[in-house]
Amino acid sequence: MIPVALFLLDPSATAGADLTEVSARTPLLAATDLAATRGDGIFETIVVVHGRPQAVEAHLDRFARSARLLDLPEPDRDRWRAAVDTVAQRLAAHPRGAVRYVMSRGDEAGDGAPTCWLLGFLPPARPEGGPTPVRVVTLDRGYRSDVAATSPWLLQGAKTLSYAVNMAALREARRRGADDVVFVSTDGLILEGPSSTVISRRGDEFVTPPAELGILPGTTQHDCFSALRAAGRTTHIRELTPDDLISADALWLCSSTRGAAPISRLDDKEITVDTESTTLMNAGLDARRR
Amino acid sequence: MIPVALFLLDPSATAGADLTEVSARTPLLAATDLAATRGDGIFETIVVVHGRPQAVEAHLDRFARSARLLDLPEPDRDRWRAAVDTVAQRLAAHPRGAVRYVMSRGDEAGDGAPTCWLLGFLPPARPEGGPTPVRVVTLDRGYRSDVAATSPWLLQGAKTLSYAVNMAALREARRRGADDVVFVSTDGLILEGPSSTVISRRGDEFVTPPAELGILPGTTQHDCFSALRAAGRTTHIRELTPDDLISADALWLCSSTRGAAPISRLDDKEITVDTESTTLMNAGLDARRR
Repeated sequence: MIPVALFLLDPSATAGADLTEVSARTPLLAATDLAATRGDGIFETIVVVHGRPQAVEAHLDRFARSARLLDLPEPDRDRWRAAVDTVAQRLAAHPRGAVRYVMSRGDEAGDGAPTCWLLGFLPPARPEGGPTPVRVVTLDRGYRSDVAATSPWLLQGAKTLSYAVNMAALREARRRGADDVVFVSTDGLILEGPSSTVISRRGDEFVTPPAELGILPGTTQHDCFSALRAAGRTTHIRELTPDDLISADALWLCSSTRGAAPISRLDDKEITVDTESTTLMNAGLDARRR
Repeated sequence: MIPVALFLLDPSATAGADLTEVSARTPLLAATDLAATRGDGIFETIVVVHGRPQAVEAHLDRFARSARLLDLPEPDRDRWRAAVDTVAQRLAAHPRGAVRYVMSRGDEAGDGAPTCWLLGFLPPARPEGGPTPVRVVTLDRGYRSDVAATSPWLLQGAKTLSYAVNMAALREARRRGADDVVFVSTDGLILEGPSSTVISRRGDEFVTPPAELGILPGTTQHDCFSALRAAGRTTHIRELTPDDLISADALWLCSSTRGAAPISRLDDKEITVDTESTTLMNAGLDARRR
């Protein structure tokens, strides 16, 4: 990733005067910021196409949901939207950039106010022909599929800065000769990837698991489903098992910066890459106004 | 907490020239440091009594174990020990300080080297009569007690920067009118607190759960057990259930900065505060040379 522009957002300042640009290479955070010492904060990553941030409202929805789950102050929606637009403008010269925006609980030795920042950056370039197919392993997430309801302090369904497990799962995938991961609950339900949503196709029907399983509502998956329905396909939100994936006609992992990436292998099973549906979904994503 | 001294450690520099003091209130970390964006790193907190860091070797052991579990470079033990000593010296004027030392995976937009820092700080003052008794609730940790063996990518037993769940559990405790938490596995075994180790007493026997359950080996609990054995008590490392705790004669949560804090309530049950054993353990901790 290549940083392009970095802004601090001060939620207590007057709107319009709340953004301060700082050098993207200059240290920003105190050693006592709870983002850095406890992973105690939330974030979103929005893809920016020729300066246009995509699925902004869905990301703002999810950011607000994460804030509630972590008892953080409610983000001022208009303020964050304006800030995302400002950073996105700085990426207008690039066909594809991204904005990561973050709210941490703040500096442990400070005044108790959250630390808020937005980073505009260039993600790894996507190949001309669309996202590269990925080899995936299923890994135990260690949780039952009902923990979001029974044990909300486990923060399942919140997009927090505490991603060490997600990163460790990706390293385990590489050890197994794969590129990415699909997490499975202890009661045998498909959950999500460490930074992606799963889509499965059987015939003309496309399925993704429900957010009630303690997973993130997928902003990219949502827009893929819109594109599929517009093209006459059927979409459903429904529980899936590993057997459902193994016997599927095609599979994808969706995320903001990658789009809909076809899965070419799941554990030991080769999966057919469905180029037509992949193109349909990614064309739908690229056609979004914002 | 009050920051006193902050040092950057450069593991690639010559030993003796690897520490750089920086202002404790100046920003230290890039917005792209993986500590801040992914909680991807490890840490330890060592208590410092009149400039003497306590249980240094046990903390260095645990730091090395965490590094292995996260596939981070092996910490240079001599280098980190010397750095801890330097920071501890800066706290010599205070009866009780602490050193937090951290290794993050580094700057995502940088050269791939870990970011390493040490912060000397003053923790909240401990009352004259020893640690304040704490009211505790048991909370589901969501994991089986065997996940450290079956699913190492869940990083149970590593002291990572991804502590959002631990912080959320403490907020849940406060919502329930309590001060702290004891986590329980889904198969009904006592695990640990969000930042502490559990000790239970029945008669003259003191028990703590084994690290094999995916919990941190407690450096403070270890030294409490040494003090207890020196005074003729029996200590065991053994699995405990919530029923064992409810029927115990006394209970404690141990951590570096708090010492051995007696539990005065567990969920709805009042627990007798055993002042004699509390004093014995904390006197043992305070008598450590380092």
